[in-house]
Amino acid sequence: MEKFEVNILGCGSALPTTRHNASSQVLNIREKLFMIDCGEGTQTQLRRSKLKFSRLNHIFISHLHGDHCFGLIGLLSTFGLLGRTATMHIYSPKELESLMLPQIDFFCKGMDYKIEFHPFETQQPTLIYDDRSVCVETIPLKHRIPCCGFLFKEKATANHIKRDMIDFYHIPTYAINRIKNGEDYVLEDGTIVPNSRLTTPSAQPRSYAYCSDTIYNPQILEQIRNVDMLYHEATFAESEAGRAKETFHTTAAQAAQLAKDANVKRLLIGHYSARYDDESVLLKEAQAIFPNTTASKENLCIAL
Amino acid sequence: MEKFEVNILGCGSALPTTRHNASSQVLNIREKLFMIDCGEGTQTQLRRSKLKFSRLNHIFISHLHGDHCFGLIGLLSTFGLLGRTATMHIYSPKELESLMLPQIDFFCKGMDYKIEFHPFETQQPTLIYDDRSVCVETIPLKHRIPCCGFLFKEKATANHIKRDMIDFYHIPTYAINRIKNGEDYVLEDGTIVPNSRLTTPSAQPRSYAYCSDTIYNPQILEQIRNVDMLYHEATFAESEAGRAKETFHTTAAQAAQLAKDANVKRLLIGHYSARYDDESVLLKEAQAIFPNTTASKENLCIAL
Repeated sequence: MEKFEVNILGCGSALPTTRHNASSQVLNIREKLFMIDCGEGTQTQLRRSKLKFSRLNHIFISHLHGDHCFGLIGLLSTFGLLGRTATMHIYSPKELESLMLPQIDFFCKGMDYKIEFHPFETQQPTLIYDDRSVCVETIPLKHRIPCCGFLFKEKATANHIKRDMIDFYHIPTYAINRIKNGEDYVLEDGTIVPNSRLTTPSAQPRSYAYCSDTIYNPQILEQIRNVDMLYHEATFAESEAGRAKETFHTTAAQAAQLAKDANVKRLLIGHYSARYDDESVLLKEAQAIFPNTTASKENLCIAL
Repeated sequence: MEKFEVNILGCGSALPTTRHNASSQVLNIREKLFMIDCGEGTQTQLRRSKLKFSRLNHIFISHLHGDHCFGLIGLLSTFGLLGRTATMHIYSPKELESLMLPQIDFFCKGMDYKIEFHPFETQQPTLIYDDRSVCVETIPLKHRIPCCGFLFKEKATANHIKRDMIDFYHIPTYAINRIKNGEDYVLEDGTIVPNSRLTTPSAQPRSYAYCSDTIYNPQILEQIRNVDMLYHEATFAESEAGRAKETFHTTAAQAAQLAKDANVKRLLIGHYSARYDDESVLLKEAQAIFPNTTASKENLCIAL
């Protein structure tokens, strides 16, 4: 099966600690890298991950709180120093560009690559990226400032040819691609050989939803239904449910309830408040509602 | 003796690695903290150091390359989240303020403390900070952009009174402070008791010079002569002397030569190029010229 991996670079919240870096993840989808959020220290975590810098061309920023974007200027500057030439695409709420441009102009003079900003509006689910293997939609969230999650949906690959059947029916090479893409084959005598006899289906396309930062918001359920993995913030334990609501964050139990209600296959929690020395309380509260929950930690890599 | 400590938070150079953070140090001088440079990740290193955030009111930025200042916005933002109220003073080349203000306005809304910028010119040694225990002068350096090092000079404390002599001469309390500050005492019969009979001298005031980033520059010798400790960048080994010159950096041997020529007591090297997996080559080259050399590393604390 082709690669679809989630690499956790940081899963802390507003206050970085010595245990958790600020938010950042990198998806490796068929050897293309997609970064989600870029808190301070992300470039060092990326180096630690051993992911290839040159395969990263797209960065998605959920919202403009520092713990989700303060690492950008350092990352972009380092890529410049390393001689990058490929354009970097940054998808974010609109104010980021005007905040970054003066810094880029000053600190990244003479850099050999371009940075292209792709602002998105944050009220409606919007398709913001699309290539032949994956598309990305925003997931509007409810936080103190405009904020979106991201839904990564893999595209189906072509069916696998059954070589022995191709030989049996003497099917010519020129017809193979159509069959891979699902067409039946018509023999010279008019007999229709159904596609299912000639191919085996490719693997089911996979999907990943990233939802951080947000208050508990069941309006996202339809969009994240049945995803293979949901990353959802779980900043607080249930004992801090009031604080979660006030600060537009989610408790671990609420994240698990969403995972259950959306029938996702697996839940990954993160964005832990600095008050927890040990996140097992968060993990336990989530698992009580949705057993297939994993706690994020730095340098964790999960294959979907 | 009162505290005068140097805490290394980061001693890497332009490219942060998993072994070295970008430049930052904190001096603890009689329980006041002074930060020098603030590369990305400094706030986490400061947390690791266990130094008290509330004692830090002065930050000195040598120059506006990212590895010396990208950590500022995260640090300032975190202090705001933690409820800081005391004004933070930032001393730097002049462009920093205009670069930081839009970020501070956007990311630190509603913060309860002020940030005051104190731009300095970078061509002449200038007194930029002065209180009753320490003063700070800039040390003009030669780098690709305007850059200054910093000379921290402790002030002498009052002499120590010899209690038995005070009793012997029946010296009244009101005269004690003058004697502590060096005056002689005149008895009723006109006899002069010299200060040296009444006091023992206080500890010799200490001094620390920070010089990074710079090409080898003997013009600084007079200013750093006899300091108790010199931190000097030693980005490259002698085999890369050409590269050092091109990029306006110093080799370890050149740093050691400066330490020797300036008759400093101790040399601390740092700002290592990312190409060195092991800085022992730099340390050896420096020690061959100036034996009392120490290699910086993260979380090192040296008392002067």
